Amino acid sequence: MALVVQKYGGTSVADADRIRDVARRVVDTYKNGSGVVAVVSAMGRSTDELLELAAEVSENPHPRELDMLLTAGERVTMALVAMAIADFGVPATSLTGSQAGILTTGRHGQAEIVEIRADRVRDGLDRGEVVIVAGFQGVDPGSKDVTTLGRGGSDATAVALASALSADHCEIYTDVDGVYTADPRVVPSATKLDEVSFEEMLELASAGAGVLMPRSVEFGRRFNIPIHVRSSFHDGDGTWVKEETMEQPVVRGIAHDDSEAKLTVYRVPDTPGVAASLFEPLADAGITVDMIVQNVSQDGFTDISFTVPLAMIDVAQAQAEVVAEAVDAGGVSVDREIAKVSVVGLGMKTESGTASRMFRILSDHGINIQMISTSPIRISCVISGDKIVEAVSALHEGLGLGGESTG
Amino acid sequence: MALVVQKYGGTSVADADRIRDVARRVVDTYKNGSGVVAVVSAMGRSTDELLELAAEVSENPHPRELDMLLTAGERVTMALVAMAIADFGVPATSLTGSQAGILTTGRHGQAEIVEIRADRVRDGLDRGEVVIVAGFQGVDPGSKDVTTLGRGGSDATAVALASALSADHCEIYTDVDGVYTADPRVVPSATKLDEVSFEEMLELASAGAGVLMPRSVEFGRRFNIPIHVRSSFHDGDGTWVKEETMEQPVVRGIAHDDSEAKLTVYRVPDTPGVAASLFEPLADAGITVDMIVQNVSQDGFTDISFTVPLAMIDVAQAQAEVVAEAVDAGGVSVDREIAKVSVVGLGMKTESGTASRMFRILSDHGINIQMISTSPIRISCVISGDKIVEAVSALHEGLGLGGESTG
Repeated sequence: MALVVQKYGGTSVADADRIRDVARRVVDTYKNGSGVVAVVSAMGRSTDELLELAAEVSENPHPRELDMLLTAGERVTMALVAMAIADFGVPATSLTGSQAGILTTGRHGQAEIVEIRADRVRDGLDRGEVVIVAGFQGVDPGSKDVTTLGRGGSDATAVALASALSADHCEIYTDVDGVYTADPRVVPSATKLDEVSFEEMLELASAGAGVLMPRSVEFGRRFNIPIHVRSSFHDGDGTWVKEETMEQPVVRGIAHDDSEAKLTVYRVPDTPGVAASLFEPLADAGITVDMIVQNVSQDGFTDISFTVPLAMIDVAQAQAEVVAEAVDAGGVSVDREIAKVSVVGLGMKTESGTASRMFRILSDHGINIQMISTSPIRISCVISGDKIVEAVSALHEGLGLGGESTG
Repeated sequence: MALVVQKYGGTSVADADRIRDVARRVVDTYKNGSGVVAVVSAMGRSTDELLELAAEVSENPHPRELDMLLTAGERVTMALVAMAIADFGVPATSLTGSQAGILTTGRHGQAEIVEIRADRVRDGLDRGEVVIVAGFQGVDPGSKDVTTLGRGGSDATAVALASALSADHCEIYTDVDGVYTADPRVVPSATKLDEVSFEEMLELASAGAGVLMPRSVEFGRRFNIPIHVRSSFHDGDGTWVKEETMEQPVVRGIAHDDSEAKLTVYRVPDTPGVAASLFEPLADAGITVDMIVQNVSQDGFTDISFTVPLAMIDVAQAQAEVVAEAVDAGGVSVDREIAKVSVVGLGMKTESGTASRMFRILSDHGINIQMISTSPIRISCVISGDKIVEAVSALHEGLGLGGESTG
């Protein structure tokens, strides 16, 4: 029998009406003869409300207890979805992450899935039930403590479960139609992609395309589970993320990210170990560093620039200043007004010239490039934040994505 | 080391401020050198809100899923209380009913505690932690499904845990000061009792005194765990419920209950098996029958009256009418305007005359007695509902409880 894992995000289950819509969709799939596992997030703003409650009670909520608190959110959704499905006469059972066998590391708030022991999910499917699983949560088998997976955790739960259950594919229901050639709020002529490869999706997601988080795409890639990103508000096809795609265009899409800030440590003595002494304390403080650029050394000194999430820039700056002092660097400067634009396409592997075309287009618009980083299928440029809309639009048009608009 | 189990009800944890108050109280007890297990209910109206959400999603919520939903309520409280305690520098760990080893029957919504395997609670205490346990919930070890214990379930959790952990006593924190000689909202001169025996408390609770539910008193009695019922809003002593009390007055207190209705099946053929054929289907339908009175048979016929909770009267009536038809009885009548007043005291065992004094007092006030039932330490009368305030006040005064007022 076919088996599909469906994931419904917070906006898809925001109130009773939408929960009944989700139930109807699950029941339709089930009645078409497919086994269904539905992974659900917390309703609408409920996770934020629980966080607010925690902030009212405690200045510095204990991580284990914060996870215990937050996991109440999906628990509510999963029970409501299960009872709505049962009302259609279809047997449904809800399971917490722990009950579904989602085993994780013990890092509260940012746990990683280590293994899935989906016996209770399989038992439910074998009995002909729809199984509803709480996303975003699991259990650390060592301490038996409940954990949460952090941002994108529900998508990761769904794709990992699809893999563990050898599902045919995984459907991610969301409030957008799929993956676009650029963010349609920025570029109205952006078009929906019918398909995109795992590698491209990984790069797009890492570069700021918010529709999927990199960790779930990585699960899909590793275990070759096709992911169908689609709207929970209508039945049309969305975007298939999968291993092989029919076409391999040079440029598949453009992503941008204005949630980062840039930090520069200048006049750093160019001696071995300096970079390590800078980035180790940042990693220990849980700060995710994105792009790192080190200039060519001059007179035994170099400048090191890197980007971090805006929310972490103050902590990062404090850390960097301590290190700058210790290694006798010239100082630290921070720029919060930056943005990153990235061009992604599998075809870049084999066809050169995209980088120079990208730089030329930005230059023609008078946009200065502050940092550059590349992968075999991506080029990213950090530019001034106030130019990002112009940059994305110009690149979308100039790299030939705008011409195929169906919108 | 001393060990105390404390239970905080919904009003005691209704918002962030009150949760911090609860944390402070727990920390005070801990710092005085006692081990503490705190059993908590869902915050304020949160259980009602979850029930409303369920009603919006489903006309007839699936019992297993309703329990899964409702258990989110205590989960939120226990995590918040634990983080508030941790802020005082005292280690605290929250455990769900399942994690705390509260094993129950599988009857969703009205599960009974079967056994407590409190290993994780003990481990936490051994590590010097305060352990917070979700009240009202457990797990059916057969199905591994989460269950709820129904009304009074959090008190029952606390007393049962106190027994399993051999705690010195159990403190029930509530929004009243303790157990009174009568409901102080009805009788302003009612006084707080310093102590009351388990037997008396069982009778008072069964007769409508809402401060404790019979099941938790029964746990206390069976395992001889003294229960201290006290206010969560100030530090004064409340009422100790325990095995031996210093005094054994003839009348300890008066309870009343206006939440029941009376049903009479009249002209029932007085043959063996008729009562069984009436009450078996009611029990099967989960209807709790309280008082039952059967008149002396006349001409081979009798009348059977009984009381049931008002909320169940329609179902009970429908059932009774089916049976009345089947056994060829005269018919069924219902009276929703009744109330029950009960006089309770251990001394009644040895001193007679309380019943006749009670009937005289009611008669002097022109109050007609519709039904009477007695136990060795209790007399209950069903009267017209509109006379209940007058009856409770008159009995409180006439049986000598009013004279000792300290209020």
